[in-house]
Amino acid sequence: MSLLLAMTGWHVEDWRARFQALLPEMPIVVLGEPFDRRAVHYVASWKHPVGSLTGLPNLAAIFSLGAGVDFLFADDKLPTVPIARVVDPDLTTRMSEYVVLHCLMYLRQQYRYLRQQREGLWEDDRNQPAARSVRVGVMGLGELGRDAARKLQVIGFDVAGWSRSPKAIDGLTTFSGEEGLKAFLARTDILVCLVPLTPDTRGIINAELIAGLAQGGRLGGPFLINAGRGGLQVAADIVAALDAGTLRGATLDVFETEPLPPDSPFWRHPNVTVTPHNSAMSEPEAIASVIAAQIRRLEAGEPLQNVVDPARGY
Amino acid sequence: MSLLLAMTGWHVEDWRARFQALLPEMPIVVLGEPFDRRAVHYVASWKHPVGSLTGLPNLAAIFSLGAGVDFLFADDKLPTVPIARVVDPDLTTRMSEYVVLHCLMYLRQQYRYLRQQREGLWEDDRNQPAARSVRVGVMGLGELGRDAARKLQVIGFDVAGWSRSPKAIDGLTTFSGEEGLKAFLARTDILVCLVPLTPDTRGIINAELIAGLAQGGRLGGPFLINAGRGGLQVAADIVAALDAGTLRGATLDVFETEPLPPDSPFWRHPNVTVTPHNSAMSEPEAIASVIAAQIRRLEAGEPLQNVVDPARGY
Repeated sequence: MSLLLAMTGWHVEDWRARFQALLPEMPIVVLGEPFDRRAVHYVASWKHPVGSLTGLPNLAAIFSLGAGVDFLFADDKLPTVPIARVVDPDLTTRMSEYVVLHCLMYLRQQYRYLRQQREGLWEDDRNQPAARSVRVGVMGLGELGRDAARKLQVIGFDVAGWSRSPKAIDGLTTFSGEEGLKAFLARTDILVCLVPLTPDTRGIINAELIAGLAQGGRLGGPFLINAGRGGLQVAADIVAALDAGTLRGATLDVFETEPLPPDSPFWRHPNVTVTPHNSAMSEPEAIASVIAAQIRRLEAGEPLQNVVDPARGY
Repeated sequence: MSLLLAMTGWHVEDWRARFQALLPEMPIVVLGEPFDRRAVHYVASWKHPVGSLTGLPNLAAIFSLGAGVDFLFADDKLPTVPIARVVDPDLTTRMSEYVVLHCLMYLRQQYRYLRQQREGLWEDDRNQPAARSVRVGVMGLGELGRDAARKLQVIGFDVAGWSRSPKAIDGLTTFSGEEGLKAFLARTDILVCLVPLTPDTRGIINAELIAGLAQGGRLGGPFLINAGRGGLQVAADIVAALDAGTLRGATLDVFETEPLPPDSPFWRHPNVTVTPHNSAMSEPEAIASVIAAQIRRLEAGEPLQNVVDPARGY
């Protein structure tokens, strides 16, 4: 039995070496090279070409090499075998770094102070809001959302969470479903979007959602941080809300097309921060190690962990 | 008995109103207006004019209206009565916000990404360091330093602390004294300075200290965050180290002269972030409330809290 590596945009030879070091007895084969399709029991994929995973009669599991699995469900010829997400504590830690950093940039008005420095202006805000008076709303309460919410609470923010299905989390106010969304948005000064991209969530950050965020508040208007997927946001609606002032600022790490095209208005919008989809990069060694452990678990007859629900798409 | 307000640069009438609301039965008098010097039992001061607190025969305690008390010891005619610092949880929370924000700016290379956005450049760091591989050193382990250290640990940094006298803090590696300083600096990628300003610490952030910081490391060189007092730093030494590359960057909230003079090289140095002494502003209401509680404690015959040691100067 062998592990097939199927990826685009990444250095497959580096991945082959990593997996071979972790699984010395397992043949590692690579999409695009000749290999025995019947020997493939496992696939590790990052954006494999659509349809390229067909004709693998003994396939037992597919592993996503990243936290997201939306690219897998975009393949309508994907074999119907169990799919496992990577749950990597390192990736979770990095996402929370990003979320806490950008919430603090808004809380502490650091864009204002960077601008003032360029202007040689010494002027503080005598009415600086306290973190406890700023309401952060975390959309998505999976591994990433829960960790970010907890760390934002430690910093002092007034945090609530929203998820599709109800979740009870110690010490966190939670909302759920379509019926809980309105109340969640209405108490949100900074919206942090960490939901998975599914047919249900595509375009969820649109004019209607933004219009539901808290106006006013201690930061003078709502802010958006999207570190989930570009497909979650309607770019034109975000720009319109920024221009209308109903959205005060946006920090975007993900975009419908990446790299972000040079003509995107996000690049030069004064109230937008663009980062190059770097909110939560895992160390490749950590990802390979998580997947190798899953394969060893299956080989020992133990169940696969972090299995994706195809009906929900995450 | 009365409370004397002695301040420069602040709106004394606002403070009078705050204290009067909290201590309705106590006469509140103000330096510069006529008042009965023998009736003054308490002074609340922020940078009172040197010598202005003499001739108060019944003075029982002096309260600093800020976290620092260095301005009190700069008055060589200060009456020898107990002095109390303000310990305000809100101020501590704000300082930690500032420290975590600016450590994350360096960890996440956010200055690079802000620059890249201005240049329309989409480029990430595939070798982004993990927080656990970045060593933060917190100098000063009072209320502020301890809280900042704990929150930096929650974010994931590898944190150690240094204080003048030995301190044991659960889960934190600590160093102390002159003899512990070298080892502390040698394991520090980001130095966070939160020590009080005393004759011992004046100019402590100098060429020698900077030269002792970890070179290399996962961030490619050491960084400095000074949110203590301007008198702690030797500005020329910081600029020289930045220009020599032995210091990669500095975030400075405090300066020997404030507002920072227009000709300071800090304003325009590409590797310096200047903030206008806003790292930890308390809400005046919170400060007044802490001091009013201390006065009520004294009036009830209970001991003063958070008393400053004049020999140590903090």
